[in-house]
Amino acid sequence: MGDARSTMVAGAATMIGMRGVGATSVRELAKHTGAPLGSTYHYFPGGKEQLVAEAVAWVSDRIETLLRESDSALDALDAFVASWRRLLESTGYHASCPVLAVAAEEPALGDDGEPVSTPAFARWHRLIAATLEKDGIAADEARGLAWTVLASVEGAVVLSRSQRSAEPLDAVAAHLRSVVAAAVARVP
Amino acid sequence: MGDARSTMVAGAATMIGMRGVGATSVRELAKHTGAPLGSTYHYFPGGKEQLVAEAVAWVSDRIETLLRESDSALDALDAFVASWRRLLESTGYHASCPVLAVAAEEPALGDDGEPVSTPAFARWHRLIAATLEKDGIAADEARGLAWTVLASVEGAVVLSRSQRSAEPLDAVAAHLRSVVAAAVARVP
Repeated sequence: MGDARSTMVAGAATMIGMRGVGATSVRELAKHTGAPLGSTYHYFPGGKEQLVAEAVAWVSDRIETLLRESDSALDALDAFVASWRRLLESTGYHASCPVLAVAAEEPALGDDGEPVSTPAFARWHRLIAATLEKDGIAADEARGLAWTVLASVEGAVVLSRSQRSAEPLDAVAAHLRSVVAAAVARVP
Repeated sequence: MGDARSTMVAGAATMIGMRGVGATSVRELAKHTGAPLGSTYHYFPGGKEQLVAEAVAWVSDRIETLLRESDSALDALDAFVASWRRLLESTGYHASCPVLAVAAEEPALGDDGEPVSTPAFARWHRLIAATLEKDGIAADEARGLAWTVLASVEGAVVLSRSQRSAEPLDAVAAHLRSVVAAAVARVP
């Protein structure tokens, strides 16, 4: 992906995380990133639908890489939380997860649009479950715990943004660390 | 609140939970509820901003009542989860919490709009913490645990909607039940 294009996709992801899909458009993206409108349309001839799909894929890939590269379930949890903390802090607590924003608005792309949050969340869930299984936790328990990790971090990011405070994310991160550590400690 | 007006506010809440703030308007609400456009504008002269504020207040009041009327922290948790489960089931897993949708899109009402998710989530958090304290849990622990309960249920509702499956909500509800029960059991 070219640098200019990549910058625009990243900008679209942040924009969706800040304002949702409804307020996102090729025109708004050009304004947001300071790119010429013509080049923005050139990169995204499919308009909003293409923009949203590529932004979700971009975020999803980054999270997947970070989960795959973790050495343990606790490392994966810490990296996942840290990634959202960076987004919150770099936007003054004005953005939350773009995939969650898309999920909350679907069918934002019209009734015929392919849901783009479904496969992204499903992949994150499987990767979190895989880090738990690698630490010896049984598949069934890992599957349930991975939903808890994903749901509570995603929820906490929205709450921290809504309250303009790290408190919800801090509370959830501390809870999940102790739950994951206890589950790993129980492994025979 | 008159019956017709109340039905429209409830309809607006469901609509926001299904399509987000971006796709919500007085015109769309009239279509969605089958009410005449004129009477819809009559009830909501403030347009989308009024619609969203009243829908959030309506949802918020219902959740607050349900939390206040619970006899114990576990009862409150069960009632909170059951309320979102009903929304998911009654919409074929096509809606999530309207307050979360608003939070994910703010400033959906423009940069000058008053954030409406902030006080709603703050009140839910305080009421959940109060149910935990009433069961004997210390204020500090109750505060942290209440963020975990709120974040993980809100996150699970979006995930269940995104996956069109009760699995994320079921997993989170089971986890929270055991965590809350254990916290209450530790009370001296």
